[in-house]
Amino acid sequence: MKSFKQMTKEELLEVKEQLDKEYSEAAAKGLKLDMSRGKPSSKQLDLTRDMLDVLNSESDMISENGLDIRNYGVLDGIPEAKKIMADILQVSPDNVIVCGNASLNIMYTLVSNAYSFGVLGNEPWCKQENVKFLCPAPGYDRHFAISELFGFELITIPMKEDGPDMDLVEKYVNNDPSVKGIWTVPKYSNPQGVTYSDEVVKRFAALKPAAKDFRIFWDNAYIIHDLYDDKKDTLLNIFDECKKTGNENLVYEFCSTSKVTFAGAGISAVAASDENIAAIKKVMGIQTIGFDKINQMMHARYFKNVEGVYEHMKKHASLLRPKFEAVLNIFNDGLKDLDIATWTNPLGGYFISFESMTGCAKAIVDKCAKAGVKLTGAGATFPYKKDPNDSNIRIAPSFPTEEEMSEAAKLFVLCVKIVSAEKLLENM
Amino acid sequence: MKSFKQMTKEELLEVKEQLDKEYSEAAAKGLKLDMSRGKPSSKQLDLTRDMLDVLNSESDMISENGLDIRNYGVLDGIPEAKKIMADILQVSPDNVIVCGNASLNIMYTLVSNAYSFGVLGNEPWCKQENVKFLCPAPGYDRHFAISELFGFELITIPMKEDGPDMDLVEKYVNNDPSVKGIWTVPKYSNPQGVTYSDEVVKRFAALKPAAKDFRIFWDNAYIIHDLYDDKKDTLLNIFDECKKTGNENLVYEFCSTSKVTFAGAGISAVAASDENIAAIKKVMGIQTIGFDKINQMMHARYFKNVEGVYEHMKKHASLLRPKFEAVLNIFNDGLKDLDIATWTNPLGGYFISFESMTGCAKAIVDKCAKAGVKLTGAGATFPYKKDPNDSNIRIAPSFPTEEEMSEAAKLFVLCVKIVSAEKLLENM
Repeated sequence: MKSFKQMTKEELLEVKEQLDKEYSEAAAKGLKLDMSRGKPSSKQLDLTRDMLDVLNSESDMISENGLDIRNYGVLDGIPEAKKIMADILQVSPDNVIVCGNASLNIMYTLVSNAYSFGVLGNEPWCKQENVKFLCPAPGYDRHFAISELFGFELITIPMKEDGPDMDLVEKYVNNDPSVKGIWTVPKYSNPQGVTYSDEVVKRFAALKPAAKDFRIFWDNAYIIHDLYDDKKDTLLNIFDECKKTGNENLVYEFCSTSKVTFAGAGISAVAASDENIAAIKKVMGIQTIGFDKINQMMHARYFKNVEGVYEHMKKHASLLRPKFEAVLNIFNDGLKDLDIATWTNPLGGYFISFESMTGCAKAIVDKCAKAGVKLTGAGATFPYKKDPNDSNIRIAPSFPTEEEMSEAAKLFVLCVKIVSAEKLLENM
Repeated sequence: MKSFKQMTKEELLEVKEQLDKEYSEAAAKGLKLDMSRGKPSSKQLDLTRDMLDVLNSESDMISENGLDIRNYGVLDGIPEAKKIMADILQVSPDNVIVCGNASLNIMYTLVSNAYSFGVLGNEPWCKQENVKFLCPAPGYDRHFAISELFGFELITIPMKEDGPDMDLVEKYVNNDPSVKGIWTVPKYSNPQGVTYSDEVVKRFAALKPAAKDFRIFWDNAYIIHDLYDDKKDTLLNIFDECKKTGNENLVYEFCSTSKVTFAGAGISAVAASDENIAAIKKVMGIQTIGFDKINQMMHARYFKNVEGVYEHMKKHASLLRPKFEAVLNIFNDGLKDLDIATWTNPLGGYFISFESMTGCAKAIVDKCAKAGVKLTGAGATFPYKKDPNDSNIRIAPSFPTEEEMSEAAKLFVLCVKIVSAEKLLENM
């Protein structure tokens, strides 16, 4: 097939007529498919079904440190869980706090603490004028929503192939004392699946923030979420790099088992420097009586150690990989030569990031919705939900079955073609 | 025995000599007992051991509303859990959000939300000068700690036999717009075991706050924690009273199963008006991806309904009652006629509140500690941990065994006598 851009108006109109017909037929099927959310599928959740057998009425309820996990006590997690989460993050257990069921809530809490009480003795952000947060975009909407809720100014940092535009990050962070934080998903980023290069990580660790209370929110959500056994991205350990630059207080790192065991019923963790951990614990002792230690123990006994987690992640990969590949094949078959879109081929994570022609994303999402295929709202991956180019669409292949996913992807491709043709015709 | 206050100096010296001898003997035993924390005992925790059998790899994982409890989704709790928590609080499920493992964390979050974002469109507390919180005292130290952390001014409200001094509460709340909240434990209060009278509840509901963003933090922690089957305090439903006065937005109510199932691994709930619930959810949707629905389901299937919870609480009562009675008998036997102390005889909750002579509490706590019996720090039950009379001591009989508890109580009585005698001798 000729690329759309090479076609004459007449050729394009002819193609569009055929596509419209196909769309009408597809819409008539009454599809009800959802590619919008990075949710594990039932089959993935079934993988840890037997975790629910690990603790029962006969189980030993005493943790390594002698504590009855059914009672009050311990703020930073039982040692068994701390060890595993620390091993996942490749830091010392002393630098880890195991928290509740949502790492997002820890991120929120640390922003909220900084806002209300300040970071390590600095003035609370609520007393400072014009706090700014850097938002590499496309990125994770829930990150941006936290900083927007607090009324911070969100500054879009373009994502490049190896991570955020570090020239821009350095310019802002090293010169503007009102820049207090940056959101990152350093491995298999949401939505592009980009893993930050060694150089990018080193440049993060070498930042010289104008603000003493600047923090990097290093959301390592997909740290062990590879799709392939033989092709894996690797990410430098940010804390190792920060040690070299003497910048150990610069980073809060997060992860969870939401996409390892049960989504929303896993355990989460924050890792930070000694000084940061001490400060977090001090406030945490007032914020809560501690986190659910029974769930921590269930996780720890189930996996035994980090190797157990790694082995388990291969099972997730084997369920996710075919879905990613099905979508990518359909994109490739349907769009490869048309010169109207690009998309990412991630080696891990939960998303494919799709770039349409400028000004087409919203229309594509709407057109899919009208035919029964739900996508993440266009713009959701940008601060204030506003994609300046109206071109990015986040594709989440995990939740539907492979067959549903294929059907949804085909409909999506159809909508991309129609909307792109309409766009090109506008200017002819 | 003569009352200490009727004794001559010589008589008192003679008594003290004997007491000192007894103390030396007791101290030599090397006791290691803890009456400091309102923790359930192992036997109480054993009561719900079989709750861990409720969910296993064979279990249905779909909630009433069709949701897979292992996946993301639902912010305010699964319907099964909402129903039970609503029935405990005697409100509609629509007015309940089931949260995570610690009701303290919901309280913190609502204070934090008010501080950062304001209450129902009012100016955030962080932008207001000199925020004040009323603290009925003796009260719960963790409540006071939250408001202290935010830098609010804590105002002590004396507790009376039927609740806080409402004349004072009304004076502050109805006249001072910088008074933004009051902490309450309306049933079997911590530490006195006081249940607010109907009149007190009605006066709370009839408050006409000078501040539009004033809220009552109604921590109904011991709402179903009766010690006796035939003698129970009853508390008016604050929301029913608020409906009558048209003040439905005035109250946030809290409860949890921390002292029903597992301490720190239960589920919690907040109840509030439609308008308050909507506002809480709006922020909550950014604060977290939702709470642990597997734990919610485990609780719901275990108890089936609120009657199941009530039946279960009788088992707790039968374990707690003998401990309370043992302590009270020892206090009675040892101190009744001496006119140096008073104490409460609660019908529920987790504590006995002890009033020594003015200026003796700290010395008693220290003397107990030296002989191996740990008590809650003197002053802990007051704002800023400062008891103006240095007279209140919180006794927590739940955690030790009955035998340990008796031994600890005897040592405590001995210390009370010695410190009181010393105090009286000082002024002779």
